[in-house]
Amino acid sequence: MASKPSIPKGTRDFSPAEVAKRNYIISIMRHHFEKFGYQPIETPSFENSDTLMGKYGEEGDRLIFKILNSGDYLDKVPAEQLQSINYKQLTNKISEKALRYDLTVPFARYVVQHQSEIEFPFKRYQIQPVWRADRPQKGRFREFYQCDADVVGSKSLWQEVELVQLYDSVFADLGLHGVTIKINNRKVLSGIAEVIGASDKLIDFTVALDKLDKIGEDGVKKEMLEKGISDEALVKVQPLFNFTGTIQEKLEKLTRLLSSSEEGKKGVEELRFICDNVTKLGLQKAILDLDVTLARGLNYYTGAIFEVTGPKEVAMGSIGGGGRYDDLTGIFGLKDMSGVGISFGLDRIYLVLEELNLFPETVTTATKVLFLNFGESQTFEAMKAITTLRNKNIKSEMYPDAAKIDKQFKHAERRGIPFVVKEIDGSNFTLKDIQTGEQLQLNLDNFIKKLS
Amino acid sequence: MASKPSIPKGTRDFSPAEVAKRNYIISIMRHHFEKFGYQPIETPSFENSDTLMGKYGEEGDRLIFKILNSGDYLDKVPAEQLQSINYKQLTNKISEKALRYDLTVPFARYVVQHQSEIEFPFKRYQIQPVWRADRPQKGRFREFYQCDADVVGSKSLWQEVELVQLYDSVFADLGLHGVTIKINNRKVLSGIAEVIGASDKLIDFTVALDKLDKIGEDGVKKEMLEKGISDEALVKVQPLFNFTGTIQEKLEKLTRLLSSSEEGKKGVEELRFICDNVTKLGLQKAILDLDVTLARGLNYYTGAIFEVTGPKEVAMGSIGGGGRYDDLTGIFGLKDMSGVGISFGLDRIYLVLEELNLFPETVTTATKVLFLNFGESQTFEAMKAITTLRNKNIKSEMYPDAAKIDKQFKHAERRGIPFVVKEIDGSNFTLKDIQTGEQLQLNLDNFIKKLS
Repeated sequence: MASKPSIPKGTRDFSPAEVAKRNYIISIMRHHFEKFGYQPIETPSFENSDTLMGKYGEEGDRLIFKILNSGDYLDKVPAEQLQSINYKQLTNKISEKALRYDLTVPFARYVVQHQSEIEFPFKRYQIQPVWRADRPQKGRFREFYQCDADVVGSKSLWQEVELVQLYDSVFADLGLHGVTIKINNRKVLSGIAEVIGASDKLIDFTVALDKLDKIGEDGVKKEMLEKGISDEALVKVQPLFNFTGTIQEKLEKLTRLLSSSEEGKKGVEELRFICDNVTKLGLQKAILDLDVTLARGLNYYTGAIFEVTGPKEVAMGSIGGGGRYDDLTGIFGLKDMSGVGISFGLDRIYLVLEELNLFPETVTTATKVLFLNFGESQTFEAMKAITTLRNKNIKSEMYPDAAKIDKQFKHAERRGIPFVVKEIDGSNFTLKDIQTGEQLQLNLDNFIKKLS
Repeated sequence: MASKPSIPKGTRDFSPAEVAKRNYIISIMRHHFEKFGYQPIETPSFENSDTLMGKYGEEGDRLIFKILNSGDYLDKVPAEQLQSINYKQLTNKISEKALRYDLTVPFARYVVQHQSEIEFPFKRYQIQPVWRADRPQKGRFREFYQCDADVVGSKSLWQEVELVQLYDSVFADLGLHGVTIKINNRKVLSGIAEVIGASDKLIDFTVALDKLDKIGEDGVKKEMLEKGISDEALVKVQPLFNFTGTIQEKLEKLTRLLSSSEEGKKGVEELRFICDNVTKLGLQKAILDLDVTLARGLNYYTGAIFEVTGPKEVAMGSIGGGGRYDDLTGIFGLKDMSGVGISFGLDRIYLVLEELNLFPETVTTATKVLFLNFGESQTFEAMKAITTLRNKNIKSEMYPDAAKIDKQFKHAERRGIPFVVKEIDGSNFTLKDIQTGEQLQLNLDNFIKKLS
């Protein structure tokens, strides 16, 4: 192979510093997931194709990575068939497995498959990569991690309360200020559509409303009119275009707007329960806000809808989202299993922390001290000390070869190792602080104390 | 979908308890890898096919999972070609990516691709899944984790010394007694083949010798004769069939046997350096042994060869292995990059710990206390206490629905939650220990103390 090797587009190598930072975020998520009673599961990277296909719409089906059957996969495809076959038909014949596209469908499959072993309500979290054959672009990858916490088997709104607290806990621990947790409710959106006589246009209506941030009031109205929503309806929804105030004030406005819709009133009641309790219990750092334009994944969600945005000074969009879905496992034949869950956007959270310089320095300092190598005479003494240090959990290394001392110093510098041992004289160690240049002669006990 | 969903053969779902136990092993490995100065990297799950194909022999190529190109992958394959094409030719046309088969080739690719950013010697570890289209059987899966630590860019034998210590550290921390780290050297095997005049039959010779455990002395000799190794050679090699004694004694025997082979003598010298230093530095729990029949991956290794076996009371075979390879990155055009590495067999280590009951109980206890749910009147007070407990890092939950108390108790029992809160009376909590039945009335402070 003459040319320099590369990796498939849309995938990434992670360097030691990047892995350390990613693991820092993941370990904080794990910690809080478990504190809230969520338990980890893991599912296979590939599923049977029929588990995944047809679950994400036509576009989703197209973006699922299919795996070729192993062995002679053409064995059972007659040559004459091959002439006229199209690629979709061929795929069905030569591929039975596909890489998972998200963690939700595999979770639903898991719950149905293992229902007899699971103790419900089942609070699970899952942090694993997923794959999508999307066109790669800035911030969009073909392989990326999803970090999901869901609970299935209970309709209690306390779950929603708790998930807001969970978001707050994780982002507070990551040191992120200015995080906004936006909440809405599918029933409120349905109620509005009902009240304005556009129930049959719920999707068009919410898709347009969702764009308020981007295209403004006039743009949204124009789109709604184009979709056949009446002038009269637009007058009725006017309050939504200037939907400001406290959560309480917003709930009052919605109550007035939705007084004639049973479903709408139910939605307001749910929002009130969640917001009231979250407020009374208090959040550490995040701000809860009611955003009636929020509609993400509407086809999917049946109750609460969540979306989290990062601090305003970093233009990153959503760093998390979720909601309640009343029929998660129905696709696999298990009815009446309501679920609610949230997701954390690892890649975006990473970028936000990076931009705000919020990764603790200790995350990426690996080795604490490098013993310089002066050749065989001292190497054994060095390794003896290193063995002792490591038993005390002090990360230490010896430069493996008797290279030029200058080169060895540079190695410590480039790797960000703060101390080197320049000399071992009997039981004394000459320790040099690379940054300050300070030198100390220490016996082993004091050496250990200095580095602990 | 009427039938119960399933997963592809050879893959596994991991339950919460299984994930907790796997993560326990992985976190101990990580800890020691980093203590020894190894840094984590991660590479994509799939690589360009030409990165992987041809690197693992014909059998390996067959076992690599190939990914179908996305979109209309038949677009560029003329229909008339399809009639006469065989599956291997078609694979080249419709698949450009493949799931990684191990972590070594992606690591070599990583080193070459990022050589200008890497500070050598580069000590890296990598813990990620790999995929092989092997026939699934007991203990052999199509998706499994590899856990590798390698160092490239130094020929120093101190690396080998350190890797033996690393094995010992990890297994000692896992509480495993009776682990044997077996060591051999490719140069010793070559030397023996040279001395007995069978250099051209090195592979046949070592493959046969490697079976000594299984088929005994007579079986090995029979196989060697069949492969054309002479009677005379077998006489010379007789000492190997009764190769007992201390490491020192074995080294003496090898020195005598290999006195006429330069390569053999070099191998003995390397073994002596490694074994002497490991012995002088001391191991915590593991036993180092020189096993001259050890030949795993011979085509690959050029110096030291390692294999680790677990305690004798568990018949599990090898739980780790590794060795030195002098030309890791040559396949990608970067010459003279010597490496040495070891691998931990996660699945087998898991089974050994399970069989010996060595997983600490705390690994799988998630939630500490469950607040029973008596309906709306007390739920807010319960959630208030839970919020406080969680802020003190005490894992606590409320049963989300006001179900029958009996059902709620059973939920705690089945999930292994040790305590329930039966009642909240003002500032007093009635705590019940599920196992002993003991009840305590505690205020919040004492409650927190009790559970901390």
